[in-house]
Amino acid sequence: MNREQAHFIAICSDSVGETAEAVVRATLRQFELQDTEIKRVMNVRTEDEISEVMEEVHRRGGFVAYTLVQPELREAIREEAVRLNVRAVDVMGPMMQAFIDTFNDTPKRLPGLLHRLDEDYFRRVEAVEFAVNNDDGKDVGAILKADLVLLGVSRVSKTPLSIFLAHKGLKVMNYPVVPELAPPTQLREIGSTKLVGLTIDAEQLVNIRAERLKSMGLPDQAHYASLDRVKQELDYARNLYESLGCPMIDVTGRAIEETAVLIMKQIKQR
Amino acid sequence: MNREQAHFIAICSDSVGETAEAVVRATLRQFELQDTEIKRVMNVRTEDEISEVMEEVHRRGGFVAYTLVQPELREAIREEAVRLNVRAVDVMGPMMQAFIDTFNDTPKRLPGLLHRLDEDYFRRVEAVEFAVNNDDGKDVGAILKADLVLLGVSRVSKTPLSIFLAHKGLKVMNYPVVPELAPPTQLREIGSTKLVGLTIDAEQLVNIRAERLKSMGLPDQAHYASLDRVKQELDYARNLYESLGCPMIDVTGRAIEETAVLIMKQIKQR
Repeated sequence: MNREQAHFIAICSDSVGETAEAVVRATLRQFELQDTEIKRVMNVRTEDEISEVMEEVHRRGGFVAYTLVQPELREAIREEAVRLNVRAVDVMGPMMQAFIDTFNDTPKRLPGLLHRLDEDYFRRVEAVEFAVNNDDGKDVGAILKADLVLLGVSRVSKTPLSIFLAHKGLKVMNYPVVPELAPPTQLREIGSTKLVGLTIDAEQLVNIRAERLKSMGLPDQAHYASLDRVKQELDYARNLYESLGCPMIDVTGRAIEETAVLIMKQIKQR
Repeated sequence: MNREQAHFIAICSDSVGETAEAVVRATLRQFELQDTEIKRVMNVRTEDEISEVMEEVHRRGGFVAYTLVQPELREAIREEAVRLNVRAVDVMGPMMQAFIDTFNDTPKRLPGLLHRLDEDYFRRVEAVEFAVNNDDGKDVGAILKADLVLLGVSRVSKTPLSIFLAHKGLKVMNYPVVPELAPPTQLREIGSTKLVGLTIDAEQLVNIRAERLKSMGLPDQAHYASLDRVKQELDYARNLYESLGCPMIDVTGRAIEETAVLIMKQIKQR
């Protein structure tokens, strides 16, 4: 297909356009469109920049999604949308209005606030670094510095879960459960409120491990991916969680994002 | 402040509510609200569940943001909003309508499609694992397997950038530039199109490193955080990028998300 013929969606933002793109992508999954092009235009500050985007959207028969907070730019994009008969979706406007109407507050209308280099931002960056450095329990001493320690056998999705939770600002460490290795004493020291044990359906784990072996060019009938071994590991893990008094979460059939939300809820309740 | 007095925002989703929460949080930054409570209600399937959320929102004087795709649930939440006089913000509706009107396509209206365990999902999970395992150039052999290699001196934000890009599905490796270490031959092998060199203002890096030393309980006047050493490292890095023919990106004053978008744009252009 010719590049110019792709379904064209422009994102026009006075910040980086991350929020608008998240909504576009979530919506895209509700359709079967084969070929799409998403173009981000960021740090928009002038009406000329808006006209330029809108002309391209018009020419290519697409639509635009925007996150703009300054009234004159919001007005400019609405006018261009009418003039060129192009659909323009206001991603943050209705939500801002709901805040104003519900809480009687006035917005700051400062562009680019979405990714300010604030305290919260640095906390999240630090948490991601912590999670990367403490993946797979490399340094048991770090257990005492963590906000949360995820326990689980190999391939139960500890790494991506740790990273996802780190993005929320939590210093997450993950520790691999292996029947042949005695768990470190630090796990008892930090107390069960900072622990979460992951489990999964044995057969699903067998499949995941077999895939993993294949992708590594190894025979997939190895002990590591056998049902007996997997069941033994999962039983051992469940007993360990019980003895540590830590809550258990079953990740079977759940996406990382979904499990992460469950974990965040548990933490809030503690 | 009493918990019940917090500014209450409910998120009501037939999936996990990740998209709606992203928009709520981006909007929140435009206001000065001191105390807010965001409650996610996910995997919503029935009108009763919707009534329950809406009653709580009404009681607590808040509003609701929703991502629902099934027509009967969308209708139910709109009716409850009118009945209880509660504001309900439809996060995906206007975007879905723009897709329908612009591309003449019909949505699937299948709930929970946002986080399907599809190919794209597994690719992203794999990319995150790759980035974690190949942080700080632990295994130079992996350079040849990467989609992108980030080069940079210590504390230039290689790790969080790698992870952020990995969430977009890119297998990113990062490699530390140190004047005393000869760069591995693999960097020349993969070719400049897969390389990005990071740089930063010397004084900003001095501050970042001094903070780092402090947080590690070390004296911040160390050689590592001296202006001379930092300048020497940055000069060495710039010369290396030039000899490798790889593009350079200045991260000074930029948030991770912002730098990531710049890198993604560069990759697309190549």
